[in-house]
Order: sequence, then C-alpha cells, then structure tokens
Amino acid sequence: MDSVARLTIILFFSWIVQISSESILKLPSEKEISGEYCDSWRLAVETNNVGSWNQIPANCVDSVAEYMIGERYKRDCDVVGKFSTEFAKRVAIGGDGRDAWVFDIDETLLSNVPYYQAVGFGSEIFNETSFNDWVNLADAPALPASLNLYRKLQDLGFTIFLLTGRSEHQRNATEANLLFAGYRNWERLILRGPSDQGKSATNFKSQKREELIIEGYRIHGSSGDQWSDLWGFAVASRSFKLPNPMYFIP
Amino acid sequence: MDSVARLTIILFFSWIVQISSESILKLPSEKEISGEYCDSWRLAVETNNVGSWNQIPANCVDSVAEYMIGERYKRDCDVVGKFSTEFAKRVAIGGDGRDAWVFDIDETLLSNVPYYQAVGFGSEIFNETSFNDWVNLADAPALPASLNLYRKLQDLGFTIFLLTGRSEHQRNATEANLLFAGYRNWERLILRGPSDQGKSATNFKSQKREELIIEGYRIHGSSGDQWSDLWGFAVASRSFKLPNPMYFIP
Repeated sequence: MDSVARLTIILFFSWIVQISSESILKLPSEKEISGEYCDSWRLAVETNNVGSWNQIPANCVDSVAEYMIGERYKRDCDVVGKFSTEFAKRVAIGGDGRDAWVFDIDETLLSNVPYYQAVGFGSEIFNETSFNDWVNLADAPALPASLNLYRKLQDLGFTIFLLTGRSEHQRNATEANLLFAGYRNWERLILRGPSDQGKSATNFKSQKREELIIEGYRIHGSSGDQWSDLWGFAVASRSFKLPNPMYFIP
Repeated sequence: MDSVARLTIILFFSWIVQISSESILKLPSEKEISGEYCDSWRLAVETNNVGSWNQIPANCVDSVAEYMIGERYKRDCDVVGKFSTEFAKRVAIGGDGRDAWVFDIDETLLSNVPYYQAVGFGSEIFNETSFNDWVNLADAPALPASLNLYRKLQDLGFTIFLLTGRSEHQRNATEANLLFAGYRNWERLILRGPSDQGKSATNFKSQKREELIIEGYRIHGSSGDQWSDLWGFAVASRSFKLPNPMYFIP
C-alpha cells in the first residue's frame, strides 16, 4: 500500500472516530446541562417534591421525550413490575376470592404515549377535548410491565379491580381498549360516576377502595402512576408507583 | 511541514480520539448494564416500591458509590431544596412563631457519606456499633442543599424542629455535630427517649409531630430522606423527600 492510500485510510478512520466521539470531546452543551437538571426534576416529580404542576419545564421537553421513548421508561416500569410480583408471590391467598389488587388505567395498564407524543409530551397544558377524542379511539397499547404483572396476579389468584379517573360515559371505549390491549377478566371497572365529579382523585379513589374493604376485600396491592392513585385512606398494604413525568393529577 | 510530520500529527490525534471515545465505540459492558438496572432500582427505592430492604444489591455497589460521590446526588438534593424553598416562600407567616418546619438529621441535615464510604455504601448490613462510633465523632458535614434551605427558612421566619431517630444519649454528640456543620438556633432537638424505643420511625415521628400540633404549631414543611420521616399521621402540609439509596428505615 502506498503512503497516500495509508494516509487516506488513517484520515478516514480519524474522521469516523471523531464523529462518534463528538459528544464526549466537547464541553457539556446546554442540552446536556438541561438534561442533567431534567433528570433531577424527574426524580423530584416521582417523589412528589414538585407539588402540583401542569406543564413540564420548557427546557425539559427533549429530556422527557427521550426518557419516554427510549429504554429508561420501559426499564423503570419493568423494575416496578418485578418488585410488585415479588411482593404478590409472598401474599397468602385465602381462596375466597377476596384477595384484591387495584390498578389505575392511564399510564398504568394503558399507555397514552402515542397521544402525548403528538402533543409535546406534557409541554402543553392538558386539553380535555383532544384527550377524550384519543380515549374514544380505544387504541392505547398496554404498558408491557403492567400486562405482565396483571397476568401473573391472576395466575396467583388475585381478584382485580380497575379504578380510574375516567368518567362513566367512557366505559365502553375503556373496556374496548382494555380488551384490545390484552386485559381480560377483571372483577370490576370503577369509573367516576355523576356523584364523583369534582372530587380530588385521592379522595375519589380512597372512597372507592374503602367501599371494597367494606365489601370484604383485602387490598394487598395497588398500582398507579400518580400518588393520588395510591395515597389517602383505605390504602393497599403495598403501593407501587409507576413513573410518569408527563402530567400530574392531584 | 513535511508529510511524515503531518502523518505523525494525524496518528497522534487519531490515537487521542480513540482513547477518549473507547466507551462509546464498544458494546455496553456488564458494568453499564448493571448500572442501568441500578438506576431503575434507585428510582424504585426513592418511590418506595422496593419495600423493606437492608442491603443494596451486590451489583449496584459501584453504581450507588458513583451516584453518592459524583454530581448527581448533589444535584438531586439541590433540586429538592429548590422546590422546598419555592413552597416555603409562598407560606403566609403568622408572626406568632408557630409556623414550623421539621427536619430529619441523618442524610437530611448531616451527611454520613464519609462513614458509608468506609463501609461499602450500604452493601453491608447496618452495624449499629460502628455507626454510633461515627456519631460520637460529631464529624459529619452538612448536606449543602439542606443547610442552604435551613438558613432561608430562618430568614423567612419559620420555627425549626429537628426530629431524629437518634437516641437521647446521643444528644450531646448530635448538638456538637450540628453546630460544627453550621446549623444554629433550632427551636428543639427531639430524639428517641426511653419510652420511644421499639416504635417504628413512622410511628415515633408521627407522634412527635402530633405533639407539636397540639402545642399550637402549624407544620408547613417536613424534610427527610426516608418516607418514614414524612408519612404516617400529623403529616406536614408538604413533605420533601431527599434521595438516599444507601439504607432504608421502616
């Protein structure tokens, strides 16, 4: 090989390596710095430190999009599913059908990522009309970690309740969507009735859990993406918080 | 410049770039894969999904060490401090000295990272004897985000209570350490007395907060690194959860 050919190969290789390594050779860019802040913001959301919020910070849109679409959201959900399953396996099932698990629906059993991807991942204020249109499509995919957990719980003998902030008039679309996504044989789907309108999610969901307890159910576990799915009164023995950096429900 | 000199420069540059970019050119290593799992495990710890645990997973020791010693822990704490301050500024201070904030001590006001660094960052089961020796040294540094918040709260007019699972016999060492770390003028330091031994942290701390409320204090905020600092009854209007992937207190 002559020296010109050698030089060409070296130059080509050096160029390829340079392209691949660009991000680590330069100083941290604005995007990286805001990405670091946004990771801490996301943790603060998950631990309820942010309090009430209705839009993700403008400089965190890219970071939240990357989180939701990339591997991290899936991995975080899988690990929540793993700990949920480990706990569920240790529950002594009574055989009377009263051992219950309560699931929230949106961002818990069903993923609305296709909808939120189209509206900027929580960077815009919640639009009830367009979200309801999406709900009526009944097209939301299952959250894989939750579908997996749901099936395992049924195998273990749990009775499953679905408790959602969706309204009673969305019952048909919600049932159709759950079936489409692979969910089967839930005991009851509890939606907000006319008398539940205006209640906070925490209050509405606590009341409904309390009714189940009065009926004789033992609520061992509860899964939701909002603390308002899990806190309040009549709480489950163990609550499992799935991640959701896209929106907040009080 | 002759072609040999040029070639040398190019080769040298290509070598430097290669070294710098090694980590992104190779396939993800075992360490990186376990680091990804450990990030999800850490989130699961922070959201209380793991339940009771007494050792960090063996393959997460490096990841937890990196988190605690690197920039992320500091940044995560700073963001919690930011949201705490934002909330505190919105509280209407009554001027009667009854507007209270409750702080936990370990991993909240004081950092035991120097101790945990010496014992494997939570990879070993808690050793009460060696930890008590460390407490008696009164040498723990302040958690910078908390010292900052503490001072801002005092400027705003909050009355500050310190509520810790440490024992009454550690009062002197604890006071000395707090002063050494820069804390001043707390209203009261509440430790576990003889009658509090054996109570869960959640129960002990809830009872003590309830006593403050009975005394007429309005507990607006509470800061802690464990959910057992924050949950239970007589909870603050807002609770702020600092990260701690090193140990769990029920």
